Amino acid sequence: MAIAVVGSLGLDTIETPAGRVEEVLGGSAAYFSLAARHFSPVSLVAVVGSDFPDAARRALEHPDLDLTGLEVQEGRTFRWEGVYSRDMNTRETRRTELNVFERFRPKLHDGIRSFRNVFLANIDPVLQREVLDQLTDPKLVLCDTMNYWIRSKREDLLEILKRVRILLINEEEARELTGEPLTHRAARAILSLGPETVVIKQGEHGAFLQGRDLYFTAPAVPIESVLDPTGAGDTFAGGFFGALTRMGRLTDRTLRAAVVYGCVMASFTVEDFGVEGLLRAKRAEILRRADSIMEMTRFRLDDTARLLR
Amino acid sequence: MAIAVVGSLGLDTIETPAGRVEEVLGGSAAYFSLAARHFSPVSLVAVVGSDFPDAARRALEHPDLDLTGLEVQEGRTFRWEGVYSRDMNTRETRRTELNVFERFRPKLHDGIRSFRNVFLANIDPVLQREVLDQLTDPKLVLCDTMNYWIRSKREDLLEILKRVRILLINEEEARELTGEPLTHRAARAILSLGPETVVIKQGEHGAFLQGRDLYFTAPAVPIESVLDPTGAGDTFAGGFFGALTRMGRLTDRTLRAAVVYGCVMASFTVEDFGVEGLLRAKRAEILRRADSIMEMTRFRLDDTARLLR
Repeated sequence: MAIAVVGSLGLDTIETPAGRVEEVLGGSAAYFSLAARHFSPVSLVAVVGSDFPDAARRALEHPDLDLTGLEVQEGRTFRWEGVYSRDMNTRETRRTELNVFERFRPKLHDGIRSFRNVFLANIDPVLQREVLDQLTDPKLVLCDTMNYWIRSKREDLLEILKRVRILLINEEEARELTGEPLTHRAARAILSLGPETVVIKQGEHGAFLQGRDLYFTAPAVPIESVLDPTGAGDTFAGGFFGALTRMGRLTDRTLRAAVVYGCVMASFTVEDFGVEGLLRAKRAEILRRADSIMEMTRFRLDDTARLLR
Repeated sequence: MAIAVVGSLGLDTIETPAGRVEEVLGGSAAYFSLAARHFSPVSLVAVVGSDFPDAARRALEHPDLDLTGLEVQEGRTFRWEGVYSRDMNTRETRRTELNVFERFRPKLHDGIRSFRNVFLANIDPVLQREVLDQLTDPKLVLCDTMNYWIRSKREDLLEILKRVRILLINEEEARELTGEPLTHRAARAILSLGPETVVIKQGEHGAFLQGRDLYFTAPAVPIESVLDPTGAGDTFAGGFFGALTRMGRLTDRTLRAAVVYGCVMASFTVEDFGVEGLLRAKRAEILRRADSIMEMTRFRLDDTARLLR
């Protein structure tokens, strides 16, 4: 089983308290694919301009990452520039150049139209709908979004939510979408909008998953030096959906494990600028970090009743 | 084994988006004691004025809560008034009247001086030191503090930290104390100041504990309606220290379980104004909530290696 992802590819200029990089490979589809391919083959649907650097394309090349859906259009690649606050919990967008992305109309080729597992990365909900409309047998559609679409295309987004099984969203966005200040209440409100499951990404605090009868939370892997949080959420989505696809079934057990793998993969991304940390993720270290989440959350209550007076 | 707690008792006026209460029982020692007594007997050392209401005193009366160290001085009881923001993550102090607390010099009577387990609740670090100096055989001293003391009495606080085994502190305060924006790095920086273990309280995100070789995190119990977060941190401390004292030893296993009971007890406090929710906590529900934390954090990675390509 493989995953089709439709999202953005771009060149990011990023400034954090730890440093600055210019025009490095970025975009939701890049982070997602590079994380998910450790678990499941991925087919990427995106657009870049004719200036897309060879080095950026080479970073994506991998036997488990199908790039036949990567369109190259005459013109400049999407560019984004952002600056993070000292604690890296907030960021300011300095510049967004849509460039070829402005005219992007995702056209899925025959091979991809029949994919059952599809990730609608954070792009305009109108484009997300166009993708959905081209799928012949969608079984497991996951989607992400952001504040910008919640504000500017709320109705289109609400239409999409009726058609996705799992929404991935960060904590602030969940509050904004629902108007519920408590995160777990926001999660439940989202379930009433369509998705059967929602995963709320909480940055340094990890993530939690709310289903009809499941509530699961996992912490972030503590990272010695966080250099750049860009793409951590998309990376989480890649680890989560990749692991879920590989496990083949949606059960309480697989959903729990998928959240853990989402947290694990995100921890590689924040360790370095752009996709550098994620590109260095190796099988042994992925397993070690999953074990570390087990180690930092396990406890026993055997003698619980005896404790109370 | 019992715990001595030295802290504040007062009358709180609290306004949250859920409502307002006036002059209700509050103070760090009240929340701590009412939580800890479910696990271990508690002896309270504090001062109130001659106007301290009978109803407030009766709320504290319990076979496991020794009030012989509760001084009543001529004058008015300590009063505090605060207003919470819409998401209840921040609050503004409208009024602080120290009243009899201004002249408070904790004098431990003979019975309490020999206590080995002592909680220095959030009060002036100068008073915390005076308490420590009166103890004849302190074995397990825990302490809490707040931004106000970090700013105004930093040197006194640093002296205290050399003499406590476990510091309980909230996330913002940990960052302010250490200058480290990442919470787990702030925790490690605190270990270099003296304590062998630090517990960082994270509100809606739960709590985590960092020891020399232990990193453990537990989520908050999701509460349907949070009415008033006042005292949640002191309540956490009561559940944590109460359970630890009851278990009798400091091991990785008991520390993990103690964090879980801290989260459980705090969940009762936030459900209602002042100590009302905490007063309603019953044995069966305490056990049920501890189990619910197990349920929302457990996962299995048996087939982990098979997942990766």
